[in-house]
Amino acid sequence: MNIAELGEFELIARLTAGLHTHSEHEIGVGDDCAILDLGSEDLLLATCDSQVEAIHFMLQTSTPEAIGQKALAINLSDIAAMGGTPRAALVSLLLPATLPVAVLDGIYAGLRAEAQRFETAIVGGNISGAGPAGKLVIDITLLGTVRRGHAILRSGARVGDLLCVTGWLGDSAAGLQSFLQACPHIEPHDLHWVQRRHTTPTPRVQEGQVLGELGPELVTAMLDISDGLSGDLQHLCERSDCGAQINLAALPLSTPLKAVAHDLQQDPVQWALHGGEDYELLLTLHPQALDTVRTALAARSNTPLTVLVPSNQPPVAYK
Amino acid sequence: MNIAELGEFELIARLTAGLHTHSEHEIGVGDDCAILDLGSEDLLLATCDSQVEAIHFMLQTSTPEAIGQKALAINLSDIAAMGGTPRAALVSLLLPATLPVAVLDGIYAGLRAEAQRFETAIVGGNISGAGPAGKLVIDITLLGTVRRGHAILRSGARVGDLLCVTGWLGDSAAGLQSFLQACPHIEPHDLHWVQRRHTTPTPRVQEGQVLGELGPELVTAMLDISDGLSGDLQHLCERSDCGAQINLAALPLSTPLKAVAHDLQQDPVQWALHGGEDYELLLTLHPQALDTVRTALAARSNTPLTVLVPSNQPPVAYK
Repeated sequence: MNIAELGEFELIARLTAGLHTHSEHEIGVGDDCAILDLGSEDLLLATCDSQVEAIHFMLQTSTPEAIGQKALAINLSDIAAMGGTPRAALVSLLLPATLPVAVLDGIYAGLRAEAQRFETAIVGGNISGAGPAGKLVIDITLLGTVRRGHAILRSGARVGDLLCVTGWLGDSAAGLQSFLQACPHIEPHDLHWVQRRHTTPTPRVQEGQVLGELGPELVTAMLDISDGLSGDLQHLCERSDCGAQINLAALPLSTPLKAVAHDLQQDPVQWALHGGEDYELLLTLHPQALDTVRTALAARSNTPLTVLVPSNQPPVAYK
Repeated sequence: MNIAELGEFELIARLTAGLHTHSEHEIGVGDDCAILDLGSEDLLLATCDSQVEAIHFMLQTSTPEAIGQKALAINLSDIAAMGGTPRAALVSLLLPATLPVAVLDGIYAGLRAEAQRFETAIVGGNISGAGPAGKLVIDITLLGTVRRGHAILRSGARVGDLLCVTGWLGDSAAGLQSFLQACPHIEPHDLHWVQRRHTTPTPRVQEGQVLGELGPELVTAMLDISDGLSGDLQHLCERSDCGAQINLAALPLSTPLKAVAHDLQQDPVQWALHGGEDYELLLTLHPQALDTVRTALAARSNTPLTVLVPSNQPPVAYK
């Protein structure tokens, strides 16, 4: 049997079997970040994610700056999903020998700008050749901190909690499609919106910090949407031992998304459900916490928070 | 200009220009590990290093277990070179779709065994496809800790210090050569020694911890030998603003190394000077510290410590 036949989730289960999971020592695998207790007031968060040429990006459709920015953004999103604050990044590069130095300079400019925007220090890294026919790879490990007792895990959702999402869903998938297929009737600014949401997603760092400050009593579970709402909601439900139902009419769809979907005769709801790479936060709230959370978020961010429950408001998570 | 034309060290200089360097905040780039002060009693160490198929290993000459073991060992060596204690690893894999699952299982078994041997938790990671024609890559970020004020930097060597090295030099290069060229007259156990020193180097973790406990007053500078003694000594001298001379007759050459060199009509001194991948510790000592250091090391390790100075004992490091 080879890797392709085994499949991603079976592979992860195989590799993590028997490793430490989150315990009273708060060290382990299975969430957006590992949590480590090194004895300081804050706990340490650690995550890593890679961007591989021809899988995650193409030099034809993204600028080098955007590639660097996104490589850090997807890691910032994992720290945000724990309610943490990003601190320091290590950047490991695999470089094809033929890569123009100007491309690498652009990637690093994007990385540095994103690091500066989110007050993260680039503190180390590694460079290796990519090997014969090897592609450009940017593999980043990001360290962050979270106040003791304030990390938001995937596993904390309870029956009756409200299921919410930040921002908008489906834009990234629409942006990707718009690179593959001409959109003849689209307004340039709508095209620009969905394409930027694909090439340079904004990690919800401020929002994650606000939610982490409120703590797991109010914000009971959280993760970031990288695989798509449907897949990531399943991860949350499995870890929390809950079920969930969502109101499709409540999905937050941007105006540009709807315009692109109309132009390409696609269903925007399918992109919102299964598209992936939105890097929004999916979270569950204590049923009485919604007003408090909305007020706290509004003080730090303009990003909308949408409740994904049927309009008659039954409990969202159920056994 | 492309990456191959620019060269590795110019590339590193380009990428690290303007980044934080070690300062009173003890956070920065340019040593074996980054050092981060997160407010706890110990400082955090962070390093990353990758192993790329067809560059750093071949599935034909190493077992999967050895590949996994070495991928962690080279990172453990970086923590050791700071005088630190390894704590937690994140493992990022790029997997070709055709890789047999049994190979991955073997790699992970090697990784886990090495982690257990050095009391390091595997706390997270990432899996990605390797891309079209992409090679297997194991990219590890390792976190460690070091007591505040006890990290040994590359930059601390002073004029008059003693230059020392742990273990033996050149074995790894001899082992690599023995995979490429038949050694007709060699004893099997000699061949096994040099090949194992290449495929599964032992990181000097216990030795690094002892040296870190002694602290930078006695152990003034340290790094691990990955590029080769000549190259890494140059790094130490540049960072410490010193020069150095070594006694070639004092180079610690193992009996198996000399046997392989004789068989292949090679000069073992050249392998010891320029071979690389020995993962021994190169360090400088306060001139009066040698007995204290030898005694402390002997209590925890059988690894020899060799003084690389001319036999008439002039100061080793000079302006």
